[in-house]
Amino acid sequence: MEIAATVPLAGREDLSLAYTPGVARVCQAIADDPALLDRYTWVPNTVAVVTDGSAVLGLGNIGPRGAMPVMEGKAVLFKAFGGVDGVPVTLDTQDTDEIIETVVRIAPGFGGINLEDISAPRCFLIEDALKQRLDIPVFHDDQHGTAVVVLAALTNALALTDRLFETTRVVVSGAGAAGVACARILLAAGVRDIAVVDSKGVLHPSREDLNPVKAALAEQTTAETGRTGALADVLAGADVLVGVSGGTIGEELVATMAPEAIIFGLANPTPEVMPDVAHRHARVVATGRSDFPNQINNVLAFPGIFRGALDARASAITEGMKLAAAEALAALVGDERADDVVIPDPFDPRVGPAVARAVAEAARRDGVARA
Amino acid sequence: MEIAATVPLAGREDLSLAYTPGVARVCQAIADDPALLDRYTWVPNTVAVVTDGSAVLGLGNIGPRGAMPVMEGKAVLFKAFGGVDGVPVTLDTQDTDEIIETVVRIAPGFGGINLEDISAPRCFLIEDALKQRLDIPVFHDDQHGTAVVVLAALTNALALTDRLFETTRVVVSGAGAAGVACARILLAAGVRDIAVVDSKGVLHPSREDLNPVKAALAEQTTAETGRTGALADVLAGADVLVGVSGGTIGEELVATMAPEAIIFGLANPTPEVMPDVAHRHARVVATGRSDFPNQINNVLAFPGIFRGALDARASAITEGMKLAAAEALAALVGDERADDVVIPDPFDPRVGPAVARAVAEAARRDGVARA
Repeated sequence: MEIAATVPLAGREDLSLAYTPGVARVCQAIADDPALLDRYTWVPNTVAVVTDGSAVLGLGNIGPRGAMPVMEGKAVLFKAFGGVDGVPVTLDTQDTDEIIETVVRIAPGFGGINLEDISAPRCFLIEDALKQRLDIPVFHDDQHGTAVVVLAALTNALALTDRLFETTRVVVSGAGAAGVACARILLAAGVRDIAVVDSKGVLHPSREDLNPVKAALAEQTTAETGRTGALADVLAGADVLVGVSGGTIGEELVATMAPEAIIFGLANPTPEVMPDVAHRHARVVATGRSDFPNQINNVLAFPGIFRGALDARASAITEGMKLAAAEALAALVGDERADDVVIPDPFDPRVGPAVARAVAEAARRDGVARA
Repeated sequence: MEIAATVPLAGREDLSLAYTPGVARVCQAIADDPALLDRYTWVPNTVAVVTDGSAVLGLGNIGPRGAMPVMEGKAVLFKAFGGVDGVPVTLDTQDTDEIIETVVRIAPGFGGINLEDISAPRCFLIEDALKQRLDIPVFHDDQHGTAVVVLAALTNALALTDRLFETTRVVVSGAGAAGVACARILLAAGVRDIAVVDSKGVLHPSREDLNPVKAALAEQTTAETGRTGALADVLAGADVLVGVSGGTIGEELVATMAPEAIIFGLANPTPEVMPDVAHRHARVVATGRSDFPNQINNVLAFPGIFRGALDARASAITEGMKLAAAEALAALVGDERADDVVIPDPFDPRVGPAVARAVAEAARRDGVARA
């Protein structure tokens, strides 16, 4: 990855425009009217890709240096799929408050903040604080990128199996960043029966070992359904399994699911349920891998979501913008919808623009757009 | 300015290399051996261009947003003249400690730190603290970039007028970032009689209104010569005037300088002494402007200095590296040396490589190179 100039620099005249003395007039103009920052600098097209290296892929807490290749890869995908200039920012601190302060201080140079590979539950606190303190989009991709693509894929999977969100029983295995966000977006989409399972069992309001984020989610998901117990208890008869735990789930468990079940095993590189096993008990199967059909890949979401948010000069990324992104993604499958085509291919050139358009429109509907 | 990918991204296979799952192996390798960061990421070629917007050009404290065009221009020059990837970082704080903490926290993502347009005397504290805490090059360009080019130009000007550093009388008008750094590098180059003048007069150990940086400089410059008083007192009979004050200096004052005087009026856009006036009393005249001969332009220094430091994987930028940069710059003028050619043209293609080579060699001599 590299920095590239978008202006010529061939002689004294170019130099005096790009730098002193010409640049002084632009600086003064922005100092007088900060809105001109968007017209005269790269800021409105940039996103800081921020990590503390505490939860990198499946590798865990490998620190900011080990995390850099992911941030750089992410920046390359931002550019290729969204035309967004992603700038890796790898932080030499894992203290929640220090991360928040640092991002607030560097924020004037960026059009948006993409949080990446920050461990739960700190990631929730950090995202919430930054959303409150900044007037640019803040988005934790491990949560919302995954949730948007899961919702899109599930929309098509439910249609294929003649199900409705409102009457579908979902189990989310894993209550980290992705699990929490998937549960939340499914609630927003209308699902009424979700059981989220962590290593100790189903999140239920009666549990006393839950952090505030899990406790709130327990209240939202199982207070009414009363579902509790272990994974086996809730998986029996469930319509949908969303695996975002990184563990594995035995065939004897998935065998108890409802007929025409839907299984998303998103752990990388080893899905919670391998597709050959899953297909013996389910009709629609998705993974996070590119070598199986139905790849739940965040790259379907984050470039278009930020492209749309930046195009609309949105001050935030709302729930409505995420739902709109999922709808747009689901709709792109169109007539090709089939058991092994519930989500578009990442290289489908329509994906980025369609998501961006839907997100920008939703930003305007939700009153957060400034353009 | 934009981010550009240096790897192809044309299909699934490229995607799985640039991002998951391929990137995981690179991350793990770096986590196991941090030195591999330099081999597998863009970090070793990057420099954060950091400002708080407190002293932008001649515009003063216009804040981080107003400063962005300078940082972006600087990044474009870094790339064009040094092949270095400069990343603008504009900080939403002007608190010294917060700036230091913030830069320390983002440092893992960069190969070097270029401080820019931070007001004195905070800039000295910030640079010193960052040098102590980081093991990558930290360089305040307003100080050292200017100082290196001034030293290079003065080297040729002294040769033209048959003077030696040791017996030349210098007046530095201005005791901000550039003035302090110019005085320091001239001391390092062997000048023994320097008077640095701020708005209250010559810096002298007897003054009680000096901040610690100015007090130390007074001790180094005028404790032995005993020079004191106002600008007029020290300019009478002086061989060299280096103007880095942003003010103007009347003709009646420069008329009192020694025969064959040397006048550098570096304020932008209006030099302390305009060239037509200066030439009535001096033999060698330089300014900061591209529309007069002898332009003292930092772009002659910072791209090559960082290129050399990064090539040598230097842990710091030493005094020896700055002196080597100035020597290399001065030597490039060669046989073309003349009253109006004491410094190379910024577009001379030999400049960046020559400075980089000299700086990398000096880094190895000084024991700070890791490659």
